[in-house]
Amino acid sequence: MARTDQKVGYLPSSKELFPTPKTAADGVENVLRILEGRWKLVILFHLFGGKVLRFSELEREIPAISQKMLIQQLRQMEKDGVVSRIVHHQVPPKVEYYLTEWGQALCPALDALLAWAASRPDEPPVGQRSP
Amino acid sequence: MARTDQKVGYLPSSKELFPTPKTAADGVENVLRILEGRWKLVILFHLFGGKVLRFSELEREIPAISQKMLIQQLRQMEKDGVVSRIVHHQVPPKVEYYLTEWGQALCPALDALLAWAASRPDEPPVGQRSP
Repeated sequence: MARTDQKVGYLPSSKELFPTPKTAADGVENVLRILEGRWKLVILFHLFGGKVLRFSELEREIPAISQKMLIQQLRQMEKDGVVSRIVHHQVPPKVEYYLTEWGQALCPALDALLAWAASRPDEPPVGQRSP
Repeated sequence: MARTDQKVGYLPSSKELFPTPKTAADGVENVLRILEGRWKLVILFHLFGGKVLRFSELEREIPAISQKMLIQQLRQMEKDGVVSRIVHHQVPPKVEYYLTEWGQALCPALDALLAWAASRPDEPPVGQRSP
């Protein structure tokens, strides 16, 4: 019944880089590490669609976040290559944040997760069945 | 520069259920909660492709996991509606695990995350640029 010779069930596009269930799981874990952090997803969804927001605009859009935390989350996202910023050399200095091309490319993947969540069957699944 | 009137940048398909960046971020968080847990992703990738595996086969495929932990992870995944099982009433009893239709539907979404990870630019992104 189990086809142990067939190592992966996921799409061929990722098979080369993630040839086994273990490497595929590790690959997803690495992505989740980029997304984890109390505010990163909210920041992402505020910047999707090619938006460019000033620090003060992000603060206003996410009132529950502290300034220190917002700085920290943006720095980590910048380090991960998801967020970039434009520094306008003016007085007072103006700094704007936007998603890198790679960060922007997360949108369809997260959308696929949301579509999956939305497709959850209403009925609780039958936990056990007899053949 | 920032279009604050345009609340979301993600695809229209999820907009109805997740109309704001906050609700979309919460939606993704809920999915991440289903995936978190040291072994769930590995179990998922072992069962993708419509595979049906006995408990002992899963144990053999994932040697690093303890029996207790494997039971716990499978129970949580069953509760979340991702995994289901077939109990064969025979002696000794035989129990097989497989992904529900909904669990199987996670495959393309996780594949999108892997494809995104694989598309990471080699060059470290420029953290700062001047207009």
